Amino acid sequence: MKNTFGSDLSLTIFGESHGRAVGAVLDGMAAGVPVEEAFLAACMDKRRARGDGLSTPRVEGDAVQFLSGVVNSRTTGTAIALMIENQNTRSGDYAKTADLLRPGHADYTAYAKYHGYQDARGGGHFSGRVTAALVAGGALVLRALNRAGIEIVTHIGRCAGISDAPFALDDPAALAAQAEALLNKSEDFALLDGSVEEPMKAAIRAAGAEGDSVGGVLETAILGLPAGVGEPYFDSVESKLSHLAFSIPAVKGIEFGSGFGFADQKGSEANDAFRMQGERIVTATNHNAGLNGGISNGMPVVFRTAVKPTPSIYKTQDTVDYIAKKDAELSIQGRHDPCIVPRAAIVQTCAAALAVGDLLTAKYGMAWMEDPTGYRKEVL
Amino acid sequence: MKNTFGSDLSLTIFGESHGRAVGAVLDGMAAGVPVEEAFLAACMDKRRARGDGLSTPRVEGDAVQFLSGVVNSRTTGTAIALMIENQNTRSGDYAKTADLLRPGHADYTAYAKYHGYQDARGGGHFSGRVTAALVAGGALVLRALNRAGIEIVTHIGRCAGISDAPFALDDPAALAAQAEALLNKSEDFALLDGSVEEPMKAAIRAAGAEGDSVGGVLETAILGLPAGVGEPYFDSVESKLSHLAFSIPAVKGIEFGSGFGFADQKGSEANDAFRMQGERIVTATNHNAGLNGGISNGMPVVFRTAVKPTPSIYKTQDTVDYIAKKDAELSIQGRHDPCIVPRAAIVQTCAAALAVGDLLTAKYGMAWMEDPTGYRKEVL
Amino acid sequence: MKNTFGSDLSLTIFGESHGRAVGAVLDGMAAGVPVEEAFLAACMDKRRARGDGLSTPRVEGDAVQFLSGVVNSRTTGTAIALMIENQNTRSGDYAKTADLLRPGHADYTAYAKYHGYQDARGGGHFSGRVTAALVAGGALVLRALNRAGIEIVTHIGRCAGISDAPFALDDPAALAAQAEALLNKSEDFALLDGSVEEPMKAAIRAAGAEGDSVGGVLETAILGLPAGVGEPYFDSVESKLSHLAFSIPAVKGIEFGSGFGFADQKGSEANDAFRMQGERIVTATNHNAGLNGGISNGMPVVFRTAVKPTPSIYKTQDTVDYIAKKDAELSIQGRHDPCIVPRAAIVQTCAAALAVGDLLTAKYGMAWMEDPTGYRKEVL
Amino acid sequence: MKNTFGSDLSLTIFGESHGRAVGAVLDGMAAGVPVEEAFLAACMDKRRARGDGLSTPRVEGDAVQFLSGVVNSRTTGTAIALMIENQNTRSGDYAKTADLLRPGHADYTAYAKYHGYQDARGGGHFSGRVTAALVAGGALVLRALNRAGIEIVTHIGRCAGISDAPFALDDPAALAAQAEALLNKSEDFALLDGSVEEPMKAAIRAAGAEGDSVGGVLETAILGLPAGVGEPYFDSVESKLSHLAFSIPAVKGIEFGSGFGFADQKGSEANDAFRMQGERIVTATNHNAGLNGGISNGMPVVFRTAVKPTPSIYKTQDTVDYIAKKDAELSIQGRHDPCIVPRAAIVQTCAAALAVGDLLTAKYGMAWMEDPTGYRKEVL
Repeated sequence: MKNTFGSDLSLTIFGESHGRAVGAVLDGMAAGVPVEEAFLAACMDKRRARGDGLSTPRVEGDAVQFLSGVVNSRTTGTAIALMIENQNTRSGDYAKTADLLRPGHADYTAYAKYHGYQDARGGGHFSGRVTAALVAGGALVLRALNRAGIEIVTHIGRCAGISDAPFALDDPAALAAQAEALLNKSEDFALLDGSVEEPMKAAIRAAGAEGDSVGGVLETAILGLPAGVGEPYFDSVESKLSHLAFSIPAVKGIEFGSGFGFADQKGSEANDAFRMQGERIVTATNHNAGLNGGISNGMPVVFRTAVKPTPSIYKTQDTVDYIAKKDAELSIQGRHDPCIVPRAAIVQTCAAALAVGDLLTAKYGMAWMEDPTGYRKEVL
Repeated sequence: MKNTFGSDLSLTIFGESHGRAVGAVLDGMAAGVPVEEAFLAACMDKRRARGDGLSTPRVEGDAVQFLSGVVNSRTTGTAIALMIENQNTRSGDYAKTADLLRPGHADYTAYAKYHGYQDARGGGHFSGRVTAALVAGGALVLRALNRAGIEIVTHIGRCAGISDAPFALDDPAALAAQAEALLNKSEDFALLDGSVEEPMKAAIRAAGAEGDSVGGVLETAILGLPAGVGEPYFDSVESKLSHLAFSIPAVKGIEFGSGFGFADQKGSEANDAFRMQGERIVTATNHNAGLNGGISNGMPVVFRTAVKPTPSIYKTQDTVDYIAKKDAELSIQGRHDPCIVPRAAIVQTCAAALAVGDLLTAKYGMAWMEDPTGYRKEVL
Repeated sequence: MKNTFGSDLSLTIFGESHGRAVGAVLDGMAAGVPVEEAFLAACMDKRRARGDGLSTPRVEGDAVQFLSGVVNSRTTGTAIALMIENQNTRSGDYAKTADLLRPGHADYTAYAKYHGYQDARGGGHFSGRVTAALVAGGALVLRALNRAGIEIVTHIGRCAGISDAPFALDDPAALAAQAEALLNKSEDFALLDGSVEEPMKAAIRAAGAEGDSVGGVLETAILGLPAGVGEPYFDSVESKLSHLAFSIPAVKGIEFGSGFGFADQKGSEANDAFRMQGERIVTATNHNAGLNGGISNGMPVVFRTAVKPTPSIYKTQDTVDYIAKKDAELSIQGRHDPCIVPRAAIVQTCAAALAVGDLLTAKYGMAWMEDPTGYRKEVL
Repeated sequence: MKNTFGSDLSLTIFGESHGRAVGAVLDGMAAGVPVEEAFLAACMDKRRARGDGLSTPRVEGDAVQFLSGVVNSRTTGTAIALMIENQNTRSGDYAKTADLLRPGHADYTAYAKYHGYQDARGGGHFSGRVTAALVAGGALVLRALNRAGIEIVTHIGRCAGISDAPFALDDPAALAAQAEALLNKSEDFALLDGSVEEPMKAAIRAAGAEGDSVGGVLETAILGLPAGVGEPYFDSVESKLSHLAFSIPAVKGIEFGSGFGFADQKGSEANDAFRMQGERIVTATNHNAGLNGGISNGMPVVFRTAVKPTPSIYKTQDTVDYIAKKDAELSIQGRHDPCIVPRAAIVQTCAAALAVGDLLTAKYGMAWMEDPTGYRKEVL
């Protein structure tokens, strides 16, 4: 199943940038789970472009329409189909350069795979617009996780050469405060250190002004995940989270806890000593990001992804005309983001929610959604 | 299915360190595929410990026994079950510290998940010994890939603070030469630059001598993968490869092509320009590691993983006695590797083979195994 | 994945009777496959109610709207989402008897499963209306099968106590003629022997007139399936076809070939002798319905399902008030079919198409859809 | 995954009749579940041939060896691999007729599928011997179900033209007594009415004596399944049970409750009226076999399968020599059952246990295995 993630709580996504709609089917939600439209709208809003020089001038309402599975703002227990209709499409922008493969894009690989039958308008199925469906489905799961005591937050770890403060990996109390602060911010440019906001935005706008784009790092924390979730080997928490993280266009790397820093550590530095905290077993440090042997140990899970610069740039680039089979030059038209890192933060949060939701459902059945109180009783 | 990876060509693994055997069921191989025992033995041998101060003194024969699915050294087309019996087990080593959670290990998470019923002897199912099954199953797929023109090789990118030469990401001809050289080396310490071998081994032994361990980076290249393999979003090549890479104990990070380096690049630097090379479309650079939009573009796929230091160290560590529920100190006994990076190279190669095999089978059915010639005809 | 069938060519269905829409996501179709709207409409039309005393007076247009995956009447190769909006809903009919469990319906089991949060209007997700989505998705696969030389047809084997002529199980040429005749009939009351049509319709109307309903048998033939499709054990052709057949509401039995008749046969009667027919291996009889060891042998696959009478009847029935927790009497209102057997014929055909399509894709990848000529060349 | 059934509690089977072993991997069992070897041995014993003129003279010990996942007679929570070694193999019996396709067997379909590379010795993977692995894995699940208050029993409904008494479909108390009686019988010829045993055995032996074989019907009851298990459509209880039932070689039909009898009923006869029984909702009759809309309603689930006569008969049969490509005559040698119906009863019970176990795990996670008391508390 190519467009489906998850086996116990699964999301199937569909849609093309300039087709009728993008959407998703979320299957496996318990019956009676509240669907809070304001929360959903807030998540959709964080992914939305603003036309403010930081993101694409293609601004849309992104209203989520439920086709099934929701009645009176509660889940019915059957498959939830939702769609977000496409409104602001200008396919003409792409027509004149249709034979020139855009470097860094999926034009060539789509051609190799679909033999020219792909919907090429606006990137088709490869457009970042499809992540709106991922956010819509993921946000429903995220809210259910919140009710079960699990929070997931993402901030811009680094962008355009400027770094935000990192999550306090080894200080759970400080990390909780950081998460709380992020959750209380209503706007969409998620930073822990407000002082880097203007320099970062300025650097993004500067790259956009010269027809270029920038990449960055997104850092996500999962708080409240009980110990004992995940599997050794194929369904490790790392495997599930990375599987979904790489489903986000532009993500090209992921690391957990000390990540690539482990390569230069010794075991005595890398190991997290266990300590009793009252009746609870905790670790003194958290280099392993709350994960041992692929399974959660109750400490916060922290991971970072590498986000490549938006491939759509206005600078002239070398490419080929794949119809004429000859080298060519390309100047891209259309409307594009100089940087997708800020908008991708909520996508990464929602993707992580889907992975965690599937893992919890594999372990607890739907009990964690139906009765968070009972579930917490068992796990804590 | 917790212990199964893959939907079209799938591997199910089982076994505990000190149980009767570790093993695997490989399902989805075409009938009539040659099973080359020498190749299989060579792969097993690369993963094998040597007791040379670099790896654990637990040295075993690792003979792969086929229980089903292979007759006259060819696959029958039905499920291939194989096992590797455990011979050299000294469970007594662990008994005396059984109540002390080993930092960095899965002792605590196994306890949280299995409520004390897990097989704790020698790490049980969490032991690196289970990767012998992954190598055995993966090696069969790897050899089938070889016959279809696809090579996968892994070298030690960095270990104990010393770096090997990197794969020539942007020079396919040079990369092919590097891969060829690695494939022709019979021994198990895979390096591109022979001059770093002795310093690296010395650094590992030094860490071992002080009762400590070291981590590193493994770099893998996949050559010959045709364009058009993989899916946008959930079954992207990155998603599948990372899902399996994180199934290898100790892997805590993965990056493709420029990886985390993308964070500081601009789009004009990150994009790989397309060029005609005769009739073939290639890229001038290969920062995206042969992958656009989750799908292969025909260029080499290169990724690196971060491998944390072996958690088993002989230095005294802080921990808790989880039965007595109090803080304690632990001095680990048993037999352990000061560094698993060299032995993990073949594991990573075989894991990548499983991911690529599953992706190819999803696309071509079993045709790529049955008739590599016909398959090459279509894709090239 | 509760609402998804198939692993290589999969269908996810969603929707409630009185919600916004019913629909489906079909995933795994090759790119460039023609989407023939006239064929699709003809299939939808066969399932459609007519308000003629044989089926429910709820008559709707059932126009299939594509949300993704289809451009210029061809598949793009990405997920095909489609929906059929609900138009003619009269939820008020149900309100007055909402607390009384309808015998034979899923009211009680839905309540037990969804704790009262299910969409109860018009049967919600349990309504036969959801089979419109199954037909829409299945029809796309059916047409692809047709192009690959495989035909699937279903007729009313028995209904209201009156039997149609059976498929000529042991005479492939005669069976082919029967199938051809059925395919050429434009109307929706599929019979091999036209002379039973009026008596059968009269018997159905008579049952309806007395506020009752009738059941029947549907018989399906699959012609042109090549030898070698299916798996021993869990993915036998019988397993896949029955899995889907029991997804059709009201189906309570299935048998292949001689079916329950085998119970009274001896091996010498039951076995189908092999014979050479020119270069081709055929069987002299076809009691095993073209299936040996779960795998197709190239002969026609024939199966029959038992369809129970529509549970919605107007006669007064004993039941319970599940809110008041006491026995009660129920007189059902609303609009219902006295017999769903005729309308279910196309549902069964499309369900079989989904099972066969998934099996072929598991074996051949997408090759059978992309290039039917090459595929036939290999298999014949 | 061709040889795997189930997604939450899954069984992967492997093995060939004359290979080293048949076996299975059972994945998804909770940790700490008792493995009662006596119960397992009793199940294996029921499937075992006795060489008594009723079944094949190939008599083997069928000892189940655990390779992983079981320590101190309890599950560890990780994958349980088991194998049953093949001992009494006489491959030579088959060699002389190797080119003649046995009618009713999978010889031809295996050839079509595996191109001659299949293990043909003794039927290879198609041998009924593989069902020993299904019984071994299923018995572990069956015992867990028993502890959770669910019983599954199968008797010979009809064989060699002689019928046993049927399960009392509409009288739960009588059905419970029937099940109790069957469970208390230690021997392997499962009948409700002891008076038909000798006539039935005589009829089987008579068929065997004339070199022929007979078929029959197996009837299974599932008692104690709580209401609310199963899914509408693709994962209906009927879909799951039938999927597994058709995995049993020789099963060619299945019907639930009134089954094919529904075809001649009216709705007013077929519907099961709901009634209050104290606080509990029950049905007055049970034509629908405890299943409405694919979901259990708490009443007993009863189904019957049609088992075709063993295809291996000693009478001379028409067939083809598939190498010489010409018509031929075949006289089968080897050792075969004149009737597999009695031995298949425990296979059907264990197959049903696997289906029910997977459905329960999808709904409750592992809670139903870990703490049957808590689970019963919720559902009753």
